Amino acid sequence: MTQTSRELRSTVSEDGTLRLNLERVDIPDPGQGQLLVRVEAAPINPSDLGLLLGPADMDSLHAEGSPDDPVLTARISPKALPGLRARLGKSMPVGNEGAGTVIKAGPDLQDLVGKRVAMIGGAMYADLRLITPDACIVLPDDATPDEGASLFVNPLTALGFVETMRAEGHSAIVHAPAASNLGQMLVRICKDDGIGLVNIVRSQKQVDLLKGIGATHVVDSSADDFFDRLCDAIDRTGATLAFDAIGGGEMTGTILNAMEAVALRKMDDYDRYGSATMKQAYIYGALDTGPTILKRGFGFQWSIGGWLLFHALKRIDPAVVKKMHERVAAEMRTTFASHYTARISLADALKPENVVAYQRKSTGSKYLIVPTEG
Amino acid sequence: MTQTSRELRSTVSEDGTLRLNLERVDIPDPGQGQLLVRVEAAPINPSDLGLLLGPADMDSLHAEGSPDDPVLTARISPKALPGLRARLGKSMPVGNEGAGTVIKAGPDLQDLVGKRVAMIGGAMYADLRLITPDACIVLPDDATPDEGASLFVNPLTALGFVETMRAEGHSAIVHAPAASNLGQMLVRICKDDGIGLVNIVRSQKQVDLLKGIGATHVVDSSADDFFDRLCDAIDRTGATLAFDAIGGGEMTGTILNAMEAVALRKMDDYDRYGSATMKQAYIYGALDTGPTILKRGFGFQWSIGGWLLFHALKRIDPAVVKKMHERVAAEMRTTFASHYTARISLADALKPENVVAYQRKSTGSKYLIVPTEG
Repeated sequence: MTQTSRELRSTVSEDGTLRLNLERVDIPDPGQGQLLVRVEAAPINPSDLGLLLGPADMDSLHAEGSPDDPVLTARISPKALPGLRARLGKSMPVGNEGAGTVIKAGPDLQDLVGKRVAMIGGAMYADLRLITPDACIVLPDDATPDEGASLFVNPLTALGFVETMRAEGHSAIVHAPAASNLGQMLVRICKDDGIGLVNIVRSQKQVDLLKGIGATHVVDSSADDFFDRLCDAIDRTGATLAFDAIGGGEMTGTILNAMEAVALRKMDDYDRYGSATMKQAYIYGALDTGPTILKRGFGFQWSIGGWLLFHALKRIDPAVVKKMHERVAAEMRTTFASHYTARISLADALKPENVVAYQRKSTGSKYLIVPTEG
Repeated sequence: MTQTSRELRSTVSEDGTLRLNLERVDIPDPGQGQLLVRVEAAPINPSDLGLLLGPADMDSLHAEGSPDDPVLTARISPKALPGLRARLGKSMPVGNEGAGTVIKAGPDLQDLVGKRVAMIGGAMYADLRLITPDACIVLPDDATPDEGASLFVNPLTALGFVETMRAEGHSAIVHAPAASNLGQMLVRICKDDGIGLVNIVRSQKQVDLLKGIGATHVVDSSADDFFDRLCDAIDRTGATLAFDAIGGGEMTGTILNAMEAVALRKMDDYDRYGSATMKQAYIYGALDTGPTILKRGFGFQWSIGGWLLFHALKRIDPAVVKKMHERVAAEMRTTFASHYTARISLADALKPENVVAYQRKSTGSKYLIVPTEG
């Protein structure tokens, strides 16, 4: 037996057109070791947008098709096409994570039918998802789809920062921008685990938000004395490691310059090559895809690199990863709670006005796709 | 007994004035384990300029003093002073390396009197240098001061690149700008050792120069098809590691983008996060102290960091460092030969017109201080 599922698909054609549509696909019954899940909620994370929209021109969004079979198109600059070579002409399913209810299961997994699960693995912007249990967390019976939707990407990223800190011999962390769902998780983790954390936010409102959930060091980058206050917070925590989701602009370099300024304060002898303190920054997102500008006042002991959850997880001991999963499930409603500002159907996700809104990636704004709506 | 030596000293005062002068200092006779060397040649390397000139304004150079006791002053922006805190008011000797003749020695080192040596350790812009043998290479009897002057910084940096390559699991190197004395050494090392090397130069003349000494892959950054040719050379060598002496501008990012473009060509499946190929660039100089601009089209598997010879040597097995020294001595006139475009006295080094010229750090231009002149 098969069942029909709508899957949100993204296709880039050789002529430079991005096309989003809802593909009807036949999903077979689950076999041995498989679950069939009705997707009930899937967040639009910044990490989904690359596959979903690519480098499409937001001024060229154009709605086509019918209410029942909506299509969205947009133009992509010819310059960007070589980087997309491997996906040209391919209809790509989208959506890293989500939550839903197991409606059918293989003969060995019948006890899971009716359970609600959180899932990771792609193709979550869909009515149905065939999946294996190792990519799921089974939720408590009273868990809602909203509560289960974002239990992989942000929670494991925040926990992954702490593991990277330990593995690389640092003792405290700088995070920017820190008022996001992920940033709030990191505040709670560091508070519980006694880890120094410097939170860089972009407004007084966000300072108040993070102080309200127990953050100690919150620095507002819009304030005149931002750099001095950043130095003070770095001095107090001893942070020599930063995670930056913005990437573009000067923030990454500014953090390294602040770390170096603090290290120089403590040196008795002048060294023309700067401090001997190793300063590491990771760019883990690309909220600003513009150029990273490094005004290098931070000596020679520094490193900036990319940080990607899927790569980081491979470097972590599997036993530690298992503990991370258990902690996420246990603290689903506290440490790892997410908040959504909009709930949209699969068809709504193809409306130009919604695309413009969710691709903005504003801190505090978070869209949830609810396939069972509409 | 003591002897008088002139030492070129650099002092930054709290009011933001840089002052260079020739300090008369009394040097004691060498004790047990010490050599007294008459300095005969010392190069002005880019790595000397930070201590020598700091961030002084080149438009404010002002000659003072007398022919016998010359003084040079310049202004330093108040903004730059906090970074110089640890050197304010201190008279700093300058000059990383040089060559000279042993004129006196401790009782245990009498056999070295009359020998010519290459030296590392600072304070080389001087008439005399008291030093220990571990900071020296004893040269053949017919070696000239010019031949011995630059046997530490550039040779060990070039050899250090190869050791870093091996330690970090890369198999070929991109170097920019590659026509320098150091670049030419690296060409000869990589040719002899069978290591792939992509040389980035800035003119056709430099292409011809490097091809003339046996380079295989030389790419001219002033050519219209630079990026395509850089990709081709990276593809042929398999280089995933770059050393960049410029630092400012877009070159570091351009190299990483070329490495990523080559890696993407070889991928069958699209990955929204870019290739899984780790791309590493090190900024080892700061020929351009302006901002580093990274146009991040190189996915998430990348790292950029500072690279400093003195830190790198500490990470290398001492037995390997010893072999590096032996190789430098053995190949002094071939692999590690340097060329100088100007020879100046200690007093000449304080003349504004010379300062303006040697701080330009143009590729192919190299100043040698000869304390025995003038």
